[in-house]
Amino acid sequence: MKIVLIGAGNVATILGRKFIQAGHSIVQVIARDASAASKLAYEWDTESANYLSLVNPRADCHLIAVSDDAIAGISADLKLPAAATVAHTAASVSREVLAGVSDHYGVFYPLQSLRREMDRIPDTPIFVDGNDAHCRQLLSRLARSISGEQVAVAGDDARLKLHVAAVFVSNFTNHLYALAESYCRQEGLDFTQLRPLIEETAVRIREASPARVQTGPAIRGDQQTIEKHLALLNAHPHLQHMYQVLSESIRQGS
Amino acid sequence: MKIVLIGAGNVATILGRKFIQAGHSIVQVIARDASAASKLAYEWDTESANYLSLVNPRADCHLIAVSDDAIAGISADLKLPAAATVAHTAASVSREVLAGVSDHYGVFYPLQSLRREMDRIPDTPIFVDGNDAHCRQLLSRLARSISGEQVAVAGDDARLKLHVAAVFVSNFTNHLYALAESYCRQEGLDFTQLRPLIEETAVRIREASPARVQTGPAIRGDQQTIEKHLALLNAHPHLQHMYQVLSESIRQGS
Repeated sequence: MKIVLIGAGNVATILGRKFIQAGHSIVQVIARDASAASKLAYEWDTESANYLSLVNPRADCHLIAVSDDAIAGISADLKLPAAATVAHTAASVSREVLAGVSDHYGVFYPLQSLRREMDRIPDTPIFVDGNDAHCRQLLSRLARSISGEQVAVAGDDARLKLHVAAVFVSNFTNHLYALAESYCRQEGLDFTQLRPLIEETAVRIREASPARVQTGPAIRGDQQTIEKHLALLNAHPHLQHMYQVLSESIRQGS
Repeated sequence: MKIVLIGAGNVATILGRKFIQAGHSIVQVIARDASAASKLAYEWDTESANYLSLVNPRADCHLIAVSDDAIAGISADLKLPAAATVAHTAASVSREVLAGVSDHYGVFYPLQSLRREMDRIPDTPIFVDGNDAHCRQLLSRLARSISGEQVAVAGDDARLKLHVAAVFVSNFTNHLYALAESYCRQEGLDFTQLRPLIEETAVRIREASPARVQTGPAIRGDQQTIEKHLALLNAHPHLQHMYQVLSESIRQGS
């Protein structure tokens, strides 16, 4: 397909690379930041622009991959032929924000943490939505070309819920890593020694439900170890509080 | 080395397999559960016993890999020659519990979540301790033979602190996975679609400090998205509470 990418951040960059790998053409990159746009255009040997008015209308899909709060403004300014298909990539923004842009509008939401510095391009499930069958089919085809079987249709409500779940398993877990890193630094321990455990904890749920493989003092009801740990955390009141809250949550069950 | 393994659970099983792969001999497996002991003995083509009084005294190392609260009892019952080297595998149990067993006693703590069902044997940093140089050197040599560079000396205090950090990055993160899984089940979403995100979140901290790659509405101060998510969680008061606590913790910084 011929694709116009609006945006030059993490999501635009990684999706663009996946599209190229899958044999699609990026016919134009548009971003307010002209230097970011031209850098990507150079990487992909294509055109760049820094005004929406310069948009190339001849593409199979116009994809808006920008921050959530920039989507409404772009939707207001972007004018495309009625036959065009346009989509944004945000979990938490309604599909309907694009209703005035063209007759076929939808969402192309990659459920992954994408950073342009990545060498590896990780597996990325895609959730698509569209206001009509044409749009849903086109976006699904595009999604399957880069994500194989990991493609599903998800409306505004399901996407928002997926985002909540993603916050738990990604933002919140990463925060626990950050808390442990800070604790190790303050106690003179080497945080990098925890990395194999971190990766194993993530990978093992391929084979078993996380509820079934829960381990540790809280699930065992091992009050003696919990008390030892809380005493050690006297010098770290915030960590001590988090330890209590999370242990209590484990005891309550999920 | 010739090794006697006391215990037949997850840690004993996985360490035993690693020892065999590294060219050591398991000369005996002892466990109260005779069938578990003989199963491992069969796997490793060696002897098994279900009484400590039957222990083979002729080994380079006697390793006690049992649950924390069983170590003291075994230490009281186990009699070894003064020249033997004995160690337990627990993070939170003092080295000194073994003082009466032989002249050389220590700890051999694998910082990993080990489950005997595993096909893969994951990378496993080992923290050793010993009451004298002979014991520390012997346990370090044994550890390096199965874990390469990921070996360090850690006394009772450091080991307990490592265990606290491990609870944060493994038990608590797994609990967040379990909460998300339960939410997905209740909302009709497919939890398995979150696995690539879970793995990416774990793997990317090879390259960057978790504090530096923190993303999500809480770190952005995106109150509008946080409010949307909390409203969605009205039907899930426990998740709503955890969402608030963790978002507040992210705002405070690590």
